[in-house]
Amino acid sequence: MQTTSVHGPQYEHLWSRILGGSFLYCNILAFKAMHCGIRKFTVAKVWKTINVCPLLSQATLSLLREIKGPTGICSIKGKRNQNLRGKLQKAGRNMSPKITTELLRQLRQVMKTSKYVTEPIQAYIVPSGDAHQSENIAPCDCRRAFISGFDGSAGTAIITEQKAAMWTDGRYFLQAAQQMDSNWTLMKMGLKDTPTQEDWLVSVLPEGSKVGVDPFIIPADQWKRMSKALKSAGHVLVPVKENLIDAIWVDRPQRPCKPLMTLDLSYTGIGWKEKIAALRAKMVERKVLWFVVTALDEVAWLLNLRGSDVEYNPVFFAYAVIGTDTIRLFISGDRMADPSTREHLLLDSALEAEFKIQVVPYESVLTELQAVCVGLSPKEKVWLSDKASYALTEAVPKAHRYLTPYTPICIAKAVKNTVEAEGMRRAHIKDAVALCELFNWLEKEVMKGSVTEISAADKAEEFRSQQNGFVDLSFATISSTGPNGAIIHYKPVPETNRALSGNEIYLLDSGAQYKDGTTDVTRTMHFGTPSAYEKECFTYVLKGHIAVSAAIFPNGTKGHLLDSFARSALWDCGLDYLHGTGHGVGCFLNVHEGPCGISYKTFADEPLEAGMIISDEPGYYEDESFGIRIENVVLVVPAKTKYNFCNRGSLTFEPLTLVPIQTKMISVPLLTQKECDWVNDYHRKCREVIGAELKSQGRHEALQWLIRETEPITKMH
Amino acid sequence: MQTTSVHGPQYEHLWSRILGGSFLYCNILAFKAMHCGIRKFTVAKVWKTINVCPLLSQATLSLLREIKGPTGICSIKGKRNQNLRGKLQKAGRNMSPKITTELLRQLRQVMKTSKYVTEPIQAYIVPSGDAHQSENIAPCDCRRAFISGFDGSAGTAIITEQKAAMWTDGRYFLQAAQQMDSNWTLMKMGLKDTPTQEDWLVSVLPEGSKVGVDPFIIPADQWKRMSKALKSAGHVLVPVKENLIDAIWVDRPQRPCKPLMTLDLSYTGIGWKEKIAALRAKMVERKVLWFVVTALDEVAWLLNLRGSDVEYNPVFFAYAVIGTDTIRLFISGDRMADPSTREHLLLDSALEAEFKIQVVPYESVLTELQAVCVGLSPKEKVWLSDKASYALTEAVPKAHRYLTPYTPICIAKAVKNTVEAEGMRRAHIKDAVALCELFNWLEKEVMKGSVTEISAADKAEEFRSQQNGFVDLSFATISSTGPNGAIIHYKPVPETNRALSGNEIYLLDSGAQYKDGTTDVTRTMHFGTPSAYEKECFTYVLKGHIAVSAAIFPNGTKGHLLDSFARSALWDCGLDYLHGTGHGVGCFLNVHEGPCGISYKTFADEPLEAGMIISDEPGYYEDESFGIRIENVVLVVPAKTKYNFCNRGSLTFEPLTLVPIQTKMISVPLLTQKECDWVNDYHRKCREVIGAELKSQGRHEALQWLIRETEPITKMH
Repeated sequence: MQTTSVHGPQYEHLWSRILGGSFLYCNILAFKAMHCGIRKFTVAKVWKTINVCPLLSQATLSLLREIKGPTGICSIKGKRNQNLRGKLQKAGRNMSPKITTELLRQLRQVMKTSKYVTEPIQAYIVPSGDAHQSENIAPCDCRRAFISGFDGSAGTAIITEQKAAMWTDGRYFLQAAQQMDSNWTLMKMGLKDTPTQEDWLVSVLPEGSKVGVDPFIIPADQWKRMSKALKSAGHVLVPVKENLIDAIWVDRPQRPCKPLMTLDLSYTGIGWKEKIAALRAKMVERKVLWFVVTALDEVAWLLNLRGSDVEYNPVFFAYAVIGTDTIRLFISGDRMADPSTREHLLLDSALEAEFKIQVVPYESVLTELQAVCVGLSPKEKVWLSDKASYALTEAVPKAHRYLTPYTPICIAKAVKNTVEAEGMRRAHIKDAVALCELFNWLEKEVMKGSVTEISAADKAEEFRSQQNGFVDLSFATISSTGPNGAIIHYKPVPETNRALSGNEIYLLDSGAQYKDGTTDVTRTMHFGTPSAYEKECFTYVLKGHIAVSAAIFPNGTKGHLLDSFARSALWDCGLDYLHGTGHGVGCFLNVHEGPCGISYKTFADEPLEAGMIISDEPGYYEDESFGIRIENVVLVVPAKTKYNFCNRGSLTFEPLTLVPIQTKMISVPLLTQKECDWVNDYHRKCREVIGAELKSQGRHEALQWLIRETEPITKMH
Repeated sequence: MQTTSVHGPQYEHLWSRILGGSFLYCNILAFKAMHCGIRKFTVAKVWKTINVCPLLSQATLSLLREIKGPTGICSIKGKRNQNLRGKLQKAGRNMSPKITTELLRQLRQVMKTSKYVTEPIQAYIVPSGDAHQSENIAPCDCRRAFISGFDGSAGTAIITEQKAAMWTDGRYFLQAAQQMDSNWTLMKMGLKDTPTQEDWLVSVLPEGSKVGVDPFIIPADQWKRMSKALKSAGHVLVPVKENLIDAIWVDRPQRPCKPLMTLDLSYTGIGWKEKIAALRAKMVERKVLWFVVTALDEVAWLLNLRGSDVEYNPVFFAYAVIGTDTIRLFISGDRMADPSTREHLLLDSALEAEFKIQVVPYESVLTELQAVCVGLSPKEKVWLSDKASYALTEAVPKAHRYLTPYTPICIAKAVKNTVEAEGMRRAHIKDAVALCELFNWLEKEVMKGSVTEISAADKAEEFRSQQNGFVDLSFATISSTGPNGAIIHYKPVPETNRALSGNEIYLLDSGAQYKDGTTDVTRTMHFGTPSAYEKECFTYVLKGHIAVSAAIFPNGTKGHLLDSFARSALWDCGLDYLHGTGHGVGCFLNVHEGPCGISYKTFADEPLEAGMIISDEPGYYEDESFGIRIENVVLVVPAKTKYNFCNRGSLTFEPLTLVPIQTKMISVPLLTQKECDWVNDYHRKCREVIGAELKSQGRHEALQWLIRETEPITKMH
């Protein structure tokens, strides 16, 4: 419990966020990580924290007290509290934008304080992101949100002596405008007249200015671009060692330091020593002496450890530096006190020297890396991701740097071994059991009018949490009905929460972290009678889903080459969807991981290989009307083909997700015979595999539901 | 006639090339441009040139005399001369590699002669290519071939004080090894241990070396990469104003300066003044004051002029610099003496000042551009392609440069207006008439055993040249039977020339330049009975061809997203082809043009737009056995769809090529009903459109062939 850390005036904004509308649901999970240090969350515990906070308005406090209720557990979730949630929501929303005048004054002060900067700087850049280039970040790293009030997932703040400006994209124009006070200028990225950060800086800075940035937060490639632009206009970009936001953020949350979880061979298939040996083999191949692990999921994967420092991602804050005969793990030392971790890492065992792990404080990574580089002979190289921070990249002299877009760990991690693939299969079976229970429950409850997007999401979490090895959700559940389904990244909050009904399409995109694997599944269903048009659109999406899932393609094919297969049926009718088709999925790791995916946007994706796991999730969205998406997680497997050109071999996909696709939504005449067969084969497998599991878990009603939902479809001739 | 230019010792190598095997066929067309200045080529004229050359061996001369024959016209082509061709070929092949000792000595001499270099240089780079980044280059620009003997289409030579090295790719390892003497080291690109040019230079150069290169020949991006690498190793890349190869190439051919052809509105649809006005509108939009036209086809398109300076490409050597109220055309002045050209460009007319063309000598482009830049105020920009030469790019100070991957001319040129599209349609109708004649002739002649790859290609050219407005071929004909068909870029030469027969698949990829448009078509056929396997493979290729041709896709889609459609049927059976699926096609311009195409290789292709014209050419190749390719040129047209997502509109393709696809090769059961319908619709259109033209040209036998070949196919149920 770290209740002390949530006090003080600097904390006001975080509290407003907690009580703000968009957080009332997803917040609950975020909250525990953020403030309470509670793993097992109950409203009672949160309440205890809230209740002692002196800064809440009386109105909000009395609302909160109403909500508390007698049990304290999940008391804001039920129907009973619908009104209260509305009121609380309103109380949250009516709060003014964050007042940043004082914070900006303080920041401008430290921008010329010699304790922090050798010479005064005229501008300070506050990017999103942490020192590991994580997609999800911990509260202590929400510096841009702290200084500006704007807490969307993407945005860069720049503060000069006179001005403060925020660059963000179209998803966040409204939110940013609401959350920021008049000290801030909103720079709407993507609009024609919006200047780039560089151009804006050049236009407002006095001649020969210094622009500062935390070198740990800015990736090396961004530094390079910004530095070049500033230099050509007579300014200079300087690294500021101490983060200036941290300097004024009095009650900044501590960096999370949750206990670690060790994974044995029955989960990982390969021991960490073997992984390091394989990494070293790659290093020898590329003639590099050192490898610096900067991404959190790469550290976790390499050492077969998991954490819970970042929401939804089972990772922990650490770096690793691997030499040809040394291993340095940069991590807060007290985590290494745990006997099971010590044993797992063989810290107290007699061991070959090259596998002896030296535990070094997290904060000393830079100085240690610099020390390593001092000892390098000419031509000796240090391998880093080209996305690593400027600080670490710069620590390696240019002549010694070896940068690649994907590290060998990223690529090895993407290719799941048979134990991992089996784990993923098990996780998906359990996940399917939970969803069969959910959909069976929804079918009964929806028509009573008692189920909302939020309660459906809660119920999904409840069923999932009953499964063995459940750890957490793998991302914030997207539970949306009717027009809300058309908002692709929708998350239900009280002010938008709709009741599920027999008149609207319902879309559920959800997933979980189990100790054996990570899931991510989307099903779209109708609890009444879908319209012919809804069925038509659903069927095109299904055809796209099948086209990818059943595709056969040569070894070495990149995922982006499969993207159009998912769209072809939609395109034929003039329809499309404005997102990619698939992303890599970790094995009890991040639900989004590189280096592969399926998208119309060309990115540097690595070729698909047997053992990789990605999602297949085409959709169709009609604004203010409905959303359709059908998503399975699929495993890349070898395909048997009639011929074998150039002896290359072929690949295809095996669906790991085994949850029925609602046949009521299918317009069967639009399917080809081959597509019909695919649906029936898929449902046969669902019935076999998930049926057996439902039976063994004694979930008979859900089993009956599964059997009903997996009846074969027939194409009339 | 420029017979004098082919004498002297420096010319020996070019002669050896002419007499060398790989040139005995394609050479003939090249020869006329290269040495004789003859537009209408006859062997007699070539002979006249050859006969006076003092450097040929007696053996070669006597062989040549045998070949000459009585008429002198096409006497090396017939069956009668098959043996002679073989012998000549052998004589050619047995010639030693080019002896370069003396040339290298001379080059190393000028590398330290103050007349050419301000300070001695320690290495000189000789890239492929000309000052306009052309795909096909003129003989005077074959500098790398001159200095090394290696005349493949890709290769870079680097000569240091001690060494000479040649980088080329896998297509040319054998050829380069044969054509170069022991002065040269072959650097096999793509092999693991082959150093890059930069790394090699760094490893062999003395400290603080200067490396020279002709700044007109090296594109700015290549300069940048090379310069950076050298600099970081303590060397420096310097531009050498005078080309050092030209300095020692005593009898270098003159830069071609053929008469120009003017195109009126009935061919171009838009006058050059309008084109310049549209370009200026783009310049205003991007806030640039000047635009530099460097690509030859862009100059030709902009001014509605054509030339014949480069083989197969109707272009002429020129630059243009367009200001907001000036037009400068850099071209050898005597071409502007022609009255029709003067009239076309309104050189002698009273004209608005902003359309008055100033004709400036071709060679003065650099100094004129530098003069333009001297007059620029801060923020005034000059627009260049990012592929322009380093010399021209560098002439524009960095702060004034505006570089884009595709110029507005490139993009405007790609979108054909209705007059151009109509011209392309007419050209394809004439081309189809020629091919119907050819295929009808082949069907009769092949079984007699009298037709070879070379004679078939000659016959194709003969039929094409009978068509109205025929100018030239658009590329060297690929005429290949049996195993030769598996060599994707095969061109028949006497040593590989096979007779067509009833036992092998025949592949013909050919095209022509007509005054109204450019064609490029591939048909694959069998004159006997194809095997079930050949039919199966042909049908997969056809399915891929149809999948692209019939694809419907949203406005704004990039061509590379369609590539997998062409491969899907092949992939399903484990087959594939190792080339792209389509390229942009010019309108009486280059047969390969940007900025669009269909490929699995991601390149910066621009989105497809109605009016663009590309090829659709999937294939399948079985080494040492056969090659299959089905290629149509297709026009991007709007598609009508049931719905219209986001009001984006949809596109599809209209085949411009209307040549029957041999139904004998189709395994009909492998086609879907939709594919069957496509084939029958396509053949109905061929019969209607080409049938009418054959009739009006009185080509009754070919018409009967067309009617036979366009009989509908039927799928049994």
